[in-house]
Amino acid sequence: MAQDKQGEIPRIIDAIQSPRDLHALTDDELALVASEIRAQIIDTASHTGGHVASSLGAVETIVALHAELDCPHDRIVYDVGHQAYAHKILTGRLARFDTLRQKDGISGFPTPLESPYDVHPSGHASDALSVALGLAKARDAMGGNENIVTVIGDASISGGMAFEALNEIAQERPRLVIVLNDNGMSIAPNVGGLSQHFRELRASSTYRTRRRSLLNALADKGPAADAALVMMNGMRVAAKNILLPSTSMVFESLGITCLSPVDGHDISALRRVLREALAINGPTIVHVTTRKGAGYEPAERTPELFHGVGPFDKETGEVAKSASSTPTFTEAFGEALLREARADKRVMAITAAMKEGTGLAPFAAEFPRRFTDVGISEEHALGLAAGMAAGGAKPVMAIYSTFLQRAIDQLTIDIALPQSDVVVCIDRAGIVGQDGATHLGAFDLSYTRMIPNLRVIAPSSAAATADALHTALTLGGPFAIRYPKGSCPDEMPEMPSQTWEPGVSELLRTGDDVALLAIGSMVQPALKAADLLAEEGISACVVDLRWAKPLDRAAITAAAETKLVVTIEEGVLAGGVGEGALDILAQERLQVPTLTLGLPDAFVRHGVRGDLLADCGLDAEGIARSVRERLGIISN
Amino acid sequence: MAQDKQGEIPRIIDAIQSPRDLHALTDDELALVASEIRAQIIDTASHTGGHVASSLGAVETIVALHAELDCPHDRIVYDVGHQAYAHKILTGRLARFDTLRQKDGISGFPTPLESPYDVHPSGHASDALSVALGLAKARDAMGGNENIVTVIGDASISGGMAFEALNEIAQERPRLVIVLNDNGMSIAPNVGGLSQHFRELRASSTYRTRRRSLLNALADKGPAADAALVMMNGMRVAAKNILLPSTSMVFESLGITCLSPVDGHDISALRRVLREALAINGPTIVHVTTRKGAGYEPAERTPELFHGVGPFDKETGEVAKSASSTPTFTEAFGEALLREARADKRVMAITAAMKEGTGLAPFAAEFPRRFTDVGISEEHALGLAAGMAAGGAKPVMAIYSTFLQRAIDQLTIDIALPQSDVVVCIDRAGIVGQDGATHLGAFDLSYTRMIPNLRVIAPSSAAATADALHTALTLGGPFAIRYPKGSCPDEMPEMPSQTWEPGVSELLRTGDDVALLAIGSMVQPALKAADLLAEEGISACVVDLRWAKPLDRAAITAAAETKLVVTIEEGVLAGGVGEGALDILAQERLQVPTLTLGLPDAFVRHGVRGDLLADCGLDAEGIARSVRERLGIISN
Repeated sequence: MAQDKQGEIPRIIDAIQSPRDLHALTDDELALVASEIRAQIIDTASHTGGHVASSLGAVETIVALHAELDCPHDRIVYDVGHQAYAHKILTGRLARFDTLRQKDGISGFPTPLESPYDVHPSGHASDALSVALGLAKARDAMGGNENIVTVIGDASISGGMAFEALNEIAQERPRLVIVLNDNGMSIAPNVGGLSQHFRELRASSTYRTRRRSLLNALADKGPAADAALVMMNGMRVAAKNILLPSTSMVFESLGITCLSPVDGHDISALRRVLREALAINGPTIVHVTTRKGAGYEPAERTPELFHGVGPFDKETGEVAKSASSTPTFTEAFGEALLREARADKRVMAITAAMKEGTGLAPFAAEFPRRFTDVGISEEHALGLAAGMAAGGAKPVMAIYSTFLQRAIDQLTIDIALPQSDVVVCIDRAGIVGQDGATHLGAFDLSYTRMIPNLRVIAPSSAAATADALHTALTLGGPFAIRYPKGSCPDEMPEMPSQTWEPGVSELLRTGDDVALLAIGSMVQPALKAADLLAEEGISACVVDLRWAKPLDRAAITAAAETKLVVTIEEGVLAGGVGEGALDILAQERLQVPTLTLGLPDAFVRHGVRGDLLADCGLDAEGIARSVRERLGIISN
Repeated sequence: MAQDKQGEIPRIIDAIQSPRDLHALTDDELALVASEIRAQIIDTASHTGGHVASSLGAVETIVALHAELDCPHDRIVYDVGHQAYAHKILTGRLARFDTLRQKDGISGFPTPLESPYDVHPSGHASDALSVALGLAKARDAMGGNENIVTVIGDASISGGMAFEALNEIAQERPRLVIVLNDNGMSIAPNVGGLSQHFRELRASSTYRTRRRSLLNALADKGPAADAALVMMNGMRVAAKNILLPSTSMVFESLGITCLSPVDGHDISALRRVLREALAINGPTIVHVTTRKGAGYEPAERTPELFHGVGPFDKETGEVAKSASSTPTFTEAFGEALLREARADKRVMAITAAMKEGTGLAPFAAEFPRRFTDVGISEEHALGLAAGMAAGGAKPVMAIYSTFLQRAIDQLTIDIALPQSDVVVCIDRAGIVGQDGATHLGAFDLSYTRMIPNLRVIAPSSAAATADALHTALTLGGPFAIRYPKGSCPDEMPEMPSQTWEPGVSELLRTGDDVALLAIGSMVQPALKAADLLAEEGISACVVDLRWAKPLDRAAITAAAETKLVVTIEEGVLAGGVGEGALDILAQERLQVPTLTLGLPDAFVRHGVRGDLLADCGLDAEGIARSVRERLGIISN
């Protein structure tokens, strides 16, 4: 069953039936368990890819938790659960661990749909404190006795939602243990700077040194450092507390007991502090200092690379390169933004802790004064953009579709209502692949189309991405531009970008039998589907809709002259482009056979993006098949 | 032009052409201006209703701001701008002030669509710091010199979004003045308790007294007290700071200069501290202590009542009663929830600072241990609900449609994905009336329909509201129930509630020519429209859809047997029930004339709810007219 037997030596983890089995082990045996888990994680992830660095950092913490707790009676809530691979291995999923993040395999995140040991689907940062408080309040209202523990990272705790929860925890004072997994790193090194600073402080010898390092920390660290700082208490007060031996932990100031920082790779120390915390009848913070990527040299050396990584060579740590020669949509956006920013100094860029992921690194390097990383603060990011626009700038916010869900209200009230000159670039729109359900980008076409004043483009190529951004910045007003994970069908063009006329689509191919109205990532499959249909004698025109809002009324009306109007989008049908096209046909009093293709009304799970799209019928074969079936019914 | 001339004495405010005119006035004259504004607000609001208490509290602050600033070159961003009536009066809107909150009149909130003096549409709490920071960053990147001032209340500053912004402000340190309008009250008296506590502290004479009052404050105050507390620093640290004369203000600990608290009704003191703040080259907090309702005895006595109030008797403060004999949907929900909670102790209730507005006050009184008010923390509220459900409780969250926009991600990821037993009751769904565009509840049908696993009901009566809640709690899983502002067509029934079968509508009236598929608040107008159509010989069946998700496929299919299928909903068309019905017809291969009626793709402004609905064609006459026109085209 085990995927990596480490030669012929039998492993303890192969014998573990339930995490309760850990209760019988000594600390030395538990340390061995941890090293076996670590080897397993490295081995599996080298084939599957995954969140290696975070999960390696949390191995001992999770082993110690399960040694002290009685799960699933006791409850562990992980914030951003990609740190929880050890938890999966210890809770009956070792045998299936090699299916990690694979289609029909186990998820890369905890999910209650997979195991009773997974309390909550942990994918979006900063929600665990709220969930844990809810568990505690339910327990206390209904007379339960279970322990509730939440594990949260130093970056996640800086999000607004976590602050809101800490607030109530400080007031309600339920019995609840908060394990602050402080890896001083988070995703990017400037995030979580406070923790590093704390460590410096602990290591320094004199008051004066401490004070200096404290002030240096204030000057140099990024927003998340400040975030944690404010959370734990403002700088000067924090200084006072740290400098007083009797109040070494500033969390105390919230009225929440905070136990002394403990080495997150020392099982004995972890168990000791957890026992202490679990005995306290109130909220308690256990501050655990960990190393991201701990125990795997390549991951310790380049934890950013190994945050979320594809398959890699286990021995060298070398990561497999993408096979595509064309740029990703993310890269195309990043390059297009650079071009715009060079031409107009009012262009500014904003990210919420995703500088690399959203393609903004080149912009940040070239225009540091016009670049802002707000940390995990999506709500603030969009309010900030609204303010920049009110001040005459042209802010461009780049964000993943799934995380923009955190700021739909700000997009509506702060940006669309006042018709602000803000461009929101929505990356990872549609199927995201291995990250699965919690990261699904299936909803942005629906939640942008509903917003008045907002214009929404879904480009289908690198050239179109550049044109879309140019159009948005040229026309002004609130714009959303959505594009998928993955590669463009084309190279980034050399020539200047075009300004598109709102609501005007592009006819790519003519045909009389069927009209394929595709948008964004579905344009290429639609073209291929037209080829397949042509082989069967079915003539299909293909339209690149370009605009999700406003839709091209003329093109949709013209499509009704065929025998079947088909809309194709990488998003849920409810509120999508297809439903919008149907309403235009209704308004134009056209009764014509129609077929709306899109993602299912479900949380699509993890797997390879192409496979999942095929499962949803959104590859060329699937589209051709749906058309054929529908036409068959019409002609019979 | 003036609406209240106070006898024959000429008023200074009638002569003010622009806020710059204040620069020439003495402090005594400005105090007179403030009293004239106050009288004007009381007089106008006694006819129009409005946010009286907040606006009265902020009069001197706003007069002092305009005396010191040079607007519109300088920028003032109001958080929850219902405090800003004085700003409207001073910036060229006195002559139209009697149209406050009336259709085609001036908005009750600042809005840039109305005046260049209004920087941002301020309606949702906690966004002003982000917007102000954006203004400052744009200014500094592009070389401007304007002053940027934001005015934020003590409750708003506790929201997660404000925390995220404070974070970045503390790090970026732009030149920016934050006026903390601390009325020690916010909407409900337990909110903003910290401010009262601060005042107690300042008034007390000895260390020991201070310490005791501090601890009492900790024990007694609500979540928002703690919120502000955590924001300004945890309790114990705050205590240390307050007790040290040299560090009276804990905001200092964020590295943000905080000037000493100032009496918000003393123009001279306010101008002095604002001048000081405006001279500082960095972020500065001006802590202004105000009395909600200041200067109007009825509002000072019952500031909650005068927070958002309808027309009242200016002399006695007596508020006009509603004419309706039937309960509001809010009241029906509150009563239905009480009944469910009495029968099942797992039922818990959550509000985000809207206990009265959402009808939860009776629940809170009867089941205080099962009731939670999280303050202005919508994101946390839904995460909390998810946790409660994971703990075996049956949480019911009551929230306004417009504010649930703040937590769509949590509804999706934390509740719908794990199929949590959480019921979200969406109040003020649709047109909200006088509060206008920032409070529009037009989007919830779209943003709930797009979410997998979520079931969505829109009840059309008090009895249906009780049935909907009973159904949700009985069936379990994630549910949204949306209902409008206003009165039910019926009394609350005495008999036990029914459990509805998912996706099953109710046929209310048969007819062959037209099928009117109405949902929620549109059922009554649809019935009346059927009467009107019957008078013209058009036979219309009327269906109460009940379920927005899943839609009733059988009923929609059956409707296609008439000459025209009409859907009617109080929400935007994009992503609404109508588009969903069209897609069902497409899937069922039914080509039939259709008509989707709903709210326009626009931010509907303020006015009387009934008038605005009629403007949107969503009253009985409008529905009948649309049907008639569409049928005319069909038959011609």
